[in-house]
Amino acid sequence: MSETTERIVLLLRCTDRPGIVAAVAEFLQRQGANIVHADQHTDRSHGLFLQRVEVEFPDGAPDGYELSEALRPLAERFAMTWSIHSTTRRPRVALLVSKDGHCLTDLLSRVELGELDAEIALVASNHDVLRPYVERADIAFHHLPIDADAGGKPAQEAEMDQLLVDHDVELVVLARYMQILSDDFTRTWAGRVINIHHSFLPAFKGARPYHRAHERGVKIIGATAHYATADLDEGPIIVQDVTPVSHRDEVADLVRKGRDLERTVLASAVRLHLEHRVLAYENRTVVFD
Amino acid sequence: MSETTERIVLLLRCTDRPGIVAAVAEFLQRQGANIVHADQHTDRSHGLFLQRVEVEFPDGAPDGYELSEALRPLAERFAMTWSIHSTTRRPRVALLVSKDGHCLTDLLSRVELGELDAEIALVASNHDVLRPYVERADIAFHHLPIDADAGGKPAQEAEMDQLLVDHDVELVVLARYMQILSDDFTRTWAGRVINIHHSFLPAFKGARPYHRAHERGVKIIGATAHYATADLDEGPIIVQDVTPVSHRDEVADLVRKGRDLERTVLASAVRLHLEHRVLAYENRTVVFD
Amino acid sequence: MSETTERIVLLLRCTDRPGIVAAVAEFLQRQGANIVHADQHTDRSHGLFLQRVEVEFPDGAPDGYELSEALRPLAERFAMTWSIHSTTRRPRVALLVSKDGHCLTDLLSRVELGELDAEIALVASNHDVLRPYVERADIAFHHLPIDADAGGKPAQEAEMDQLLVDHDVELVVLARYMQILSDDFTRTWAGRVINIHHSFLPAFKGARPYHRAHERGVKIIGATAHYATADLDEGPIIVQDVTPVSHRDEVADLVRKGRDLERTVLASAVRLHLEHRVLAYENRTVVFD
Amino acid sequence: MSETTERIVLLLRCTDRPGIVAAVAEFLQRQGANIVHADQHTDRSHGLFLQRVEVEFPDGAPDGYELSEALRPLAERFAMTWSIHSTTRRPRVALLVSKDGHCLTDLLSRVELGELDAEIALVASNHDVLRPYVERADIAFHHLPIDADAGGKPAQEAEMDQLLVDHDVELVVLARYMQILSDDFTRTWAGRVINIHHSFLPAFKGARPYHRAHERGVKIIGATAHYATADLDEGPIIVQDVTPVSHRDEVADLVRKGRDLERTVLASAVRLHLEHRVLAYENRTVVFD
Repeated sequence: MSETTERIVLLLRCTDRPGIVAAVAEFLQRQGANIVHADQHTDRSHGLFLQRVEVEFPDGAPDGYELSEALRPLAERFAMTWSIHSTTRRPRVALLVSKDGHCLTDLLSRVELGELDAEIALVASNHDVLRPYVERADIAFHHLPIDADAGGKPAQEAEMDQLLVDHDVELVVLARYMQILSDDFTRTWAGRVINIHHSFLPAFKGARPYHRAHERGVKIIGATAHYATADLDEGPIIVQDVTPVSHRDEVADLVRKGRDLERTVLASAVRLHLEHRVLAYENRTVVFD
Repeated sequence: MSETTERIVLLLRCTDRPGIVAAVAEFLQRQGANIVHADQHTDRSHGLFLQRVEVEFPDGAPDGYELSEALRPLAERFAMTWSIHSTTRRPRVALLVSKDGHCLTDLLSRVELGELDAEIALVASNHDVLRPYVERADIAFHHLPIDADAGGKPAQEAEMDQLLVDHDVELVVLARYMQILSDDFTRTWAGRVINIHHSFLPAFKGARPYHRAHERGVKIIGATAHYATADLDEGPIIVQDVTPVSHRDEVADLVRKGRDLERTVLASAVRLHLEHRVLAYENRTVVFD
Repeated sequence: MSETTERIVLLLRCTDRPGIVAAVAEFLQRQGANIVHADQHTDRSHGLFLQRVEVEFPDGAPDGYELSEALRPLAERFAMTWSIHSTTRRPRVALLVSKDGHCLTDLLSRVELGELDAEIALVASNHDVLRPYVERADIAFHHLPIDADAGGKPAQEAEMDQLLVDHDVELVVLARYMQILSDDFTRTWAGRVINIHHSFLPAFKGARPYHRAHERGVKIIGATAHYATADLDEGPIIVQDVTPVSHRDEVADLVRKGRDLERTVLASAVRLHLEHRVLAYENRTVVFD
Repeated sequence: MSETTERIVLLLRCTDRPGIVAAVAEFLQRQGANIVHADQHTDRSHGLFLQRVEVEFPDGAPDGYELSEALRPLAERFAMTWSIHSTTRRPRVALLVSKDGHCLTDLLSRVELGELDAEIALVASNHDVLRPYVERADIAFHHLPIDADAGGKPAQEAEMDQLLVDHDVELVVLARYMQILSDDFTRTWAGRVINIHHSFLPAFKGARPYHRAHERGVKIIGATAHYATADLDEGPIIVQDVTPVSHRDEVADLVRKGRDLERTVLASAVRLHLEHRVLAYENRTVVFD
């Protein structure tokens, strides 16, 4: 569902102080921009102001360099961390998978149907089993096995990193990729890797969450999409959802119900990221939905 | 949970056009106000801009007349519909009930525990059965029976209206008041009467919704809090919530599950209104929560 | 997730009276069957007893004729309506679609991934646009346009009916098929056609539910899977689900959120039907999940 | 909502093996009992069969000794753990509280309105602040302070235990009682103490869950009602529920939203226990709702 008119999204973050909203609004007015949506949030615990502004330029949008230049004085005045995004660009996304195909086929289908406005640059996997689902959609599938004789995991990760760089990937989605990423990798790709964890974090961090949920006898299970960080399952949470379960549900039922959560939670998080609605900071997120 | 510092809430509505956000922000800055929260919404279908701004005045808040006066030029420039509210005032609320006590006791308890920042001016009822729950909380209970020999419903409603006026009531909550209000009454009290309907409107409008839900075999039931209007069950919706049901639930179970929904949905709507978070227009609401 | 051991599911319905549970349990014991799951429900309003029993035969399951014969005396004694199902048979399913592909691709993917234990016999559509998604999964796609010069809708429906018969179809899934089926068709296929409606029925029956939901200003939208009957949108409800919306959601957002509901609600209803967990009667369902 | 006809509830648990359902059904038939509801569950991981049967005796229910005697041969044959309950007895319940009154007033109100079919034998607290809410409902309030000079916590707990025994208390509800109970106490009262924890366990076990949830940046908070055991927050879970939160919610908002969850989750768990719908075993529960 691409916008027909180009819109520019500004994501701003700075120390909270009086006058920011007025200054941003005045700046945009002088640029000839009409505000289409504006959301802001003040995080009192951290003394931060965060804003997402979506604007249209009736007389044509400036290019990115021009807008950056114009924005600089305002950004310096408030010591802002900022980014600008055009809604007519389709971000290039890579999907990493292992053997479970439900998140993969769901994401591929959403891109094909126009629900997610992205270009799938490639799919990579440490296994070769999901290749058919990818290739029949005319997307390149890269099998990157972890081979102890060929450098093991570090070598495989280096190859993956190179692949992502070569294809100008802007967002990496771990669509049930069952390998732990190295600190180096997550640092390099910080804020650009979204993972789906099959529990309502922080409950059942780590492996086999459905088994542990069953053992504990919980009455609710969940799924969590978050940015990947060096601390496994500890990154900023973007989306969570849950579903009720009962004593009638065996582990296989939890897995089945969880798969539906994983699909929709991951797809939501990817959409929110692609629409520049997520601001991550201090291990948390502001989601302007 | 009263605010310790006085805050002023501005609710603004006008035809959408460029420059409003900047003008409001600039106005507030000149008044010496710090924006604590600001939410805005543009309703594209109706071409309207709506805003809620919550501000603090570090040097002391102006009184209401003074702020009104200061706001006038801005309001005239944009042809705004507006209101201003101080968070240190506790709105005076009347509860109307019939025989079901669950919403009544829930609301009374929330006011006593400080969850709802209001003063219960009175409780009135067409029946006398809930008197004990009210009087033991030291609140006046008015029994206003509908007596065919004493003018019937019009006379009773006139008496009720007088009672509300005499007690300077600012918000009327129909906490399961099972009488239809006249067009005159709803017009006089427009935007100041909140009703709870025991279905997820517009499904099962009118009487006996749980029986009809059971008969239809739905798998979800709900409750709806809305402003009362002359068209029964057609007023602007403030809050809705639902809960799953199954074939195991008989009508009595739907009633039981529904009572929990009614309590929390009505209490939420009342809280949002008391905190000046609801803007009603064109038979809909913007809820800045 | 096929069962490795064959299980037999018995669905039973009869007038409620004492002794049924004991009689069924005793019957199964004599047949050498072990009860793996048993669920029953007494509908007091209609005076009916309904039961689902899932059994294993450690010494090998009897064939369908043999079990029918054995069951006959019990069924006659209690005047039961009954059916028997083997979990090792994969029901043959036809999907009917129009132009929206999200439910189609979701169902195809679930069958491929083994989440739904069925065989997709064919996909038929009054439009030709979704053909590629079907054929690349090696499933036959039949374009059955409604052609005014070739008999119009009755002719197209007759062709469709013949197609379903020719392919021994046991379940028809209307995966966003935007044509009203004739009374004849729904009668012929009664209890074997599942439709997805994009509202929480009975709210917003009929066309354009998301537009009407937006106009009404509801705070919750939903989706409903039900058996198709002659009365449009009035058939027995199998599954419903909802999601919160707010003033920030325009019609396009309701459509987007609704698509996620439609996918999961329809897939759940299909799974429950395929696992013989749904008993429909008196325009309602018992769902033994 | 007391039953007008006396019903007897049987809760049964034994090692799973063929023939139990038939044997129970035949036993009840011989006793002249009609089965009104029957639910059973087979826990395959633990090889257990669990059943709840609710029956009516058209010719009058036997007394408890008589039914126990009649049940003995069946129970011995299957080595059952069992209990029998009459729906006409109103269990005697004690509420333990500290300073937060929301669960207390909610439970008191539900008993008064007939939503919970119990007799509140007493309310006890380590603080004196909630006395007025209790005494105005004509219920005894016992202030049991923890006094270092008078034996401290062990002495207070001993006094509390004695109080519960003196008043024939059958169920103890920790309605936000902020004291850890000793191992001895939880062992003595095993299966008869229900606690409400203000998080979706096992997330945020221990103290200050809302603060920690806020710090972690979760998008969902919850509440958990469970039987109290020696291992704090590790007992069998009866009911859980959750609600979405966002970056807009500060700790005070989480507390507010959580209070609504705590009320309804605790009240549900108490109702399920009072209706003999909960079977606890192996640190989990079967809830026949």
